[in-house]
Amino acid sequence: MDKPNRLTNKINVGVIGLGRMGKIHLKNLMQAITHANVVAVADPVYPEEQFRKEYGDLLFVKDVIELITSPDVDAIIIATPTSTHAALVEQCIDNDKSVFCEKPLDLSLEITKTLLQKAENLGVPLMIGFNRRFDRDFMEARKAVSEGKIGNPQIVKITNRDPSLPSIEFVKTSGGMFMDFTIHDFDMARYMMDKEVVEVYAKGLVFFDEEMAKVGDVDTALTTLTFADGTYAVLDNSRKAVFGYDQRLEIFGDKGMIQVENNLANRNVLYNENGIHQALPLNSFTQRYIDSYCKEMEAFIGALLNKTPVPIKNEDIIMATLLAYAAKKSMDEQRPVKIAEMK
Amino acid sequence: MDKPNRLTNKINVGVIGLGRMGKIHLKNLMQAITHANVVAVADPVYPEEQFRKEYGDLLFVKDVIELITSPDVDAIIIATPTSTHAALVEQCIDNDKSVFCEKPLDLSLEITKTLLQKAENLGVPLMIGFNRRFDRDFMEARKAVSEGKIGNPQIVKITNRDPSLPSIEFVKTSGGMFMDFTIHDFDMARYMMDKEVVEVYAKGLVFFDEEMAKVGDVDTALTTLTFADGTYAVLDNSRKAVFGYDQRLEIFGDKGMIQVENNLANRNVLYNENGIHQALPLNSFTQRYIDSYCKEMEAFIGALLNKTPVPIKNEDIIMATLLAYAAKKSMDEQRPVKIAEMK
Amino acid sequence: MDKPNRLTNKINVGVIGLGRMGKIHLKNLMQAITHANVVAVADPVYPEEQFRKEYGDLLFVKDVIELITSPDVDAIIIATPTSTHAALVEQCIDNDKSVFCEKPLDLSLEITKTLLQKAENLGVPLMIGFNRRFDRDFMEARKAVSEGKIGNPQIVKITNRDPSLPSIEFVKTSGGMFMDFTIHDFDMARYMMDKEVVEVYAKGLVFFDEEMAKVGDVDTALTTLTFADGTYAVLDNSRKAVFGYDQRLEIFGDKGMIQVENNLANRNVLYNENGIHQALPLNSFTQRYIDSYCKEMEAFIGALLNKTPVPIKNEDIIMATLLAYAAKKSMDEQRPVKIAEMK
Amino acid sequence: MDKPNRLTNKINVGVIGLGRMGKIHLKNLMQAITHANVVAVADPVYPEEQFRKEYGDLLFVKDVIELITSPDVDAIIIATPTSTHAALVEQCIDNDKSVFCEKPLDLSLEITKTLLQKAENLGVPLMIGFNRRFDRDFMEARKAVSEGKIGNPQIVKITNRDPSLPSIEFVKTSGGMFMDFTIHDFDMARYMMDKEVVEVYAKGLVFFDEEMAKVGDVDTALTTLTFADGTYAVLDNSRKAVFGYDQRLEIFGDKGMIQVENNLANRNVLYNENGIHQALPLNSFTQRYIDSYCKEMEAFIGALLNKTPVPIKNEDIIMATLLAYAAKKSMDEQRPVKIAEMK
Repeated sequence: MDKPNRLTNKINVGVIGLGRMGKIHLKNLMQAITHANVVAVADPVYPEEQFRKEYGDLLFVKDVIELITSPDVDAIIIATPTSTHAALVEQCIDNDKSVFCEKPLDLSLEITKTLLQKAENLGVPLMIGFNRRFDRDFMEARKAVSEGKIGNPQIVKITNRDPSLPSIEFVKTSGGMFMDFTIHDFDMARYMMDKEVVEVYAKGLVFFDEEMAKVGDVDTALTTLTFADGTYAVLDNSRKAVFGYDQRLEIFGDKGMIQVENNLANRNVLYNENGIHQALPLNSFTQRYIDSYCKEMEAFIGALLNKTPVPIKNEDIIMATLLAYAAKKSMDEQRPVKIAEMK
Repeated sequence: MDKPNRLTNKINVGVIGLGRMGKIHLKNLMQAITHANVVAVADPVYPEEQFRKEYGDLLFVKDVIELITSPDVDAIIIATPTSTHAALVEQCIDNDKSVFCEKPLDLSLEITKTLLQKAENLGVPLMIGFNRRFDRDFMEARKAVSEGKIGNPQIVKITNRDPSLPSIEFVKTSGGMFMDFTIHDFDMARYMMDKEVVEVYAKGLVFFDEEMAKVGDVDTALTTLTFADGTYAVLDNSRKAVFGYDQRLEIFGDKGMIQVENNLANRNVLYNENGIHQALPLNSFTQRYIDSYCKEMEAFIGALLNKTPVPIKNEDIIMATLLAYAAKKSMDEQRPVKIAEMK
Repeated sequence: MDKPNRLTNKINVGVIGLGRMGKIHLKNLMQAITHANVVAVADPVYPEEQFRKEYGDLLFVKDVIELITSPDVDAIIIATPTSTHAALVEQCIDNDKSVFCEKPLDLSLEITKTLLQKAENLGVPLMIGFNRRFDRDFMEARKAVSEGKIGNPQIVKITNRDPSLPSIEFVKTSGGMFMDFTIHDFDMARYMMDKEVVEVYAKGLVFFDEEMAKVGDVDTALTTLTFADGTYAVLDNSRKAVFGYDQRLEIFGDKGMIQVENNLANRNVLYNENGIHQALPLNSFTQRYIDSYCKEMEAFIGALLNKTPVPIKNEDIIMATLLAYAAKKSMDEQRPVKIAEMK
Repeated sequence: MDKPNRLTNKINVGVIGLGRMGKIHLKNLMQAITHANVVAVADPVYPEEQFRKEYGDLLFVKDVIELITSPDVDAIIIATPTSTHAALVEQCIDNDKSVFCEKPLDLSLEITKTLLQKAENLGVPLMIGFNRRFDRDFMEARKAVSEGKIGNPQIVKITNRDPSLPSIEFVKTSGGMFMDFTIHDFDMARYMMDKEVVEVYAKGLVFFDEEMAKVGDVDTALTTLTFADGTYAVLDNSRKAVFGYDQRLEIFGDKGMIQVENNLANRNVLYNENGIHQALPLNSFTQRYIDSYCKEMEAFIGALLNKTPVPIKNEDIIMATLLAYAAKKSMDEQRPVKIAEMK
């Protein structure tokens, strides 16, 4: 590679993948995260002319290996399709590059565990993108729980619904409802309760689109988690809510309750002869969670800079993945599945 | 009259007028107010047959004087048209009967003052029905202000809108917007702020119905009150809100703010592709304030029973009436009017 | 019995039991339900002197059989302890008296079925008090679902939490969490979804009070119902919410969502330097559901008057009871239970 | 100046003043507004070293004249103290530079008019920063009004309260409550109603801080505007609300009502034994209106690029300034002031 602009007191970052998420991370790294210095972007298929128009003279390479092996790069952001994550992450580890990789690390629990272990053994920071942990409202809720505002939490109920069905093409390679979609909620439930799950009971349903069944997936799911102390989580998932992106959470304890409500498109209220009307929820994850991606990246860069552990632990990644497996097994076998069975 | 059923430890009550308000008071007195004993009802025009069907063998007389002079009656409830209030109240006072009279006591400020003074001189309890002081939500708000929850109040803003225009026939004899409608807000503003008004600036507008102008009235008004310490009230009135009975209040002080919101027809929320929808406010005073009439009557009966002053002072009645006059004068003369001018 | 006041066009009613619910029903029947004529009250233990003070010369008997066999009575309201329900209901049936009985009819599913069948065979109207079906907000929600406002319902989520733990004495004879408490939600879930349940998965937890465990009950439960078409209900129960009586429901479908929110003690909002504050939910079922008891009784009396079926079907009673059994079995056996197993 | 990087299809912008607002505009121009190209920044007092640290090698000059006269600059953003606005704007006009200037253009109405006229005569675009017109919620409300969603508007009520008192030093040179603070509301009222004001009645009060009186200003004001058709606006201002930045608006018409509610710091709700609690409103204009500054600048740059008029008309600037004068006069003379008097 050409010599990029290396600065002290900054983490030199390379970004792999210029899809929707890659562009979000790139923008945040370039504009908002003071201690990040983007040195190059790699994408095997993105048109160079287009890149030039959008990013000026930022270094651009087609060959991801060139980026991963560059001595000018400290950390790599991986925002490529899931199927490529594991190989890229491993190459990063081998080249001693800190890695931020979009979720899931891999559809295979074994590979997930192996890679996380390898990174840990070699002391290479590896963080998976559970961005919702960095959402303002969820963070405030977590903080309130930590501070004892609701006492001992007894149940967390998560509502997670997409505004519209994904394409069947996407569904085919997504890993299925639990691995692709509910995985956020597995992580969020553990994050909010700060307790360990011992049992999963999941039910899936093709409610909207029979095509889902043909590719072996569901568009609707209801998952109950039981924690070690007998407390619960309920995860309510739908691939489609006509009223938009439905992202809510409620956690009840012996001293109180916290709700995270939907963020609406505006704060206006219209009264007319038919009723009182408000705007719909923000309609996509890029609207609803846009700030969380920035805070997430800031946390990653901050951890590298301060040489502290990345804020999502290996155990968090493994458990979210394992719960996705357990939920699938529970749905398939129509029975509650103990986590102990899965290990 | 025949001998009614006289009980000890109860106030024996007669009700005059079986219109909408008379029936509400009668029902409350008969069913809910333990220490009231309804002995008779008087109405010169109500069909006796109808009365029998509705109230069984309750004593019914056509002649209001018979009721007012009956030794079996301790207290009289007057729920007749406004034009009859003064004469009936005076007869009650002359016969040493405690009186509860619907607002306004009289359209004339002079007569109002004279009657209140006479009752006071003779020691006859006389209470005028400012029911909103007894509304659960307004009472709670008043309590919070009294307890210093918002510190020193700087402004009270009252929104008072009817769901639909009254008949022009009613408007003609109503005393006009300020005397008939805003009068509730004059009283409420003083009740909430617990300060005395020194200036009124009122503007009226025929916004909905040109017929209003023909009978010398307005259907819309905006009144600003200034209290002795320079703080304010804003009274926003409309005879018509397409979304129903709009009854709100907001009071701001140096330590906080209290809002009384509309009571909606139900607590349901509907989400669909067009938005998030709630039910309209309760649609009339008989729905919105139904409980307040009962609490108001309870307060009246309680004061008689305990021989304590009725909970609305002469000064409250006089000031509300005087403010209605001042507002009319301000609107007519297109200038702020000092209360000192009115006395 | 002495001769009570028999009226035409009215249903002559006798009330058995003067506990909290009996008094609520009695008041509604006497004051609000035009076509009911209360002829007598029976309670073996209620002090007669106390009764006289409260109800004047209303006929009062100690012997419930006297009431049930009286030719002056058309219908009986049973508001006694659960353990006495079955015997009293059977005597009513045998004496051809229409019966309204508080839920549950009996803790035994067999007895429940037998009695319902007997009443049906003999053409005696028998209605069990699932009052929440008559709550304004739930009725509006049900209506909206029926009208297709949310399309095909996919999930109903019910939150039902009491403000404080019942006494252990009560718990011992209550029939347990599912029969005593969740039973309302079993009925509500079927009522809202208008679909039949095929599977129950229930988990219980002693979260607040170890005494619960000693008497073989739980204070917390989470129940998942699966309907015949694969859609769901989630019932979230707690015997204690520090913030009061938590009564909410949410039903999501392919065209929208409806929420029934808590009814708060008032509609005021306080802003101060610590935040924005609202009042707690109405604190008990007698506050939150007070109107529903009246509407429920009105529906019962109306059905008798019009000789139409009572508005809650035998199947509703049986299914709610059966679901309570199935939930208990599911919790005990730690597995989902098919309704088919229970029959 | 050195040769900056001149691009086609972009507006080359210079920014004068690196205070709080200057930095916000600079950031938006550099990061978010595609068609802006920041060529230089001028500030006579900002430390160059500090500038380098923050903005790298962006061109920085101490001499504002150098920037205004530079042939490399198309448009100038003025974000300096109010007292310097007029002279800078005039120099921009004389040098044929498009200008965006923070409000107010000048404390003198005469100078304001003269400068606007001069810019118009010479065809130089000049826009004053009434950013609230570009706030998402206010824009949506304005759109709904334009579309007839509430019919003919009868009253707009604006609540505008700062979270804390400004320094007395600031107050001294601010132009006073109406010119510095209420001016936003004068503009907003006209923008929302789309009607012309004919009368102002304003009252001011020193409620919080006696120091205000010493420098001839107030900390609290209540202003009533009357529009040509007799409809109203009420502007409620306070320099201090303990619960944060209170920014609300309500507009009522013959077909409905729209409210713009406060934007809260998060969407969480906490229930505990004391009540139901929400977060306070976003605490400052830089939080609440941060997006509006970007949209405002985008509108300015877009107008220059497309050679369309800037989206705020001269009449808007003149009327807002004139209303500030009229309000001051009304407060001082304790009477309603006609706009006709002011011209």
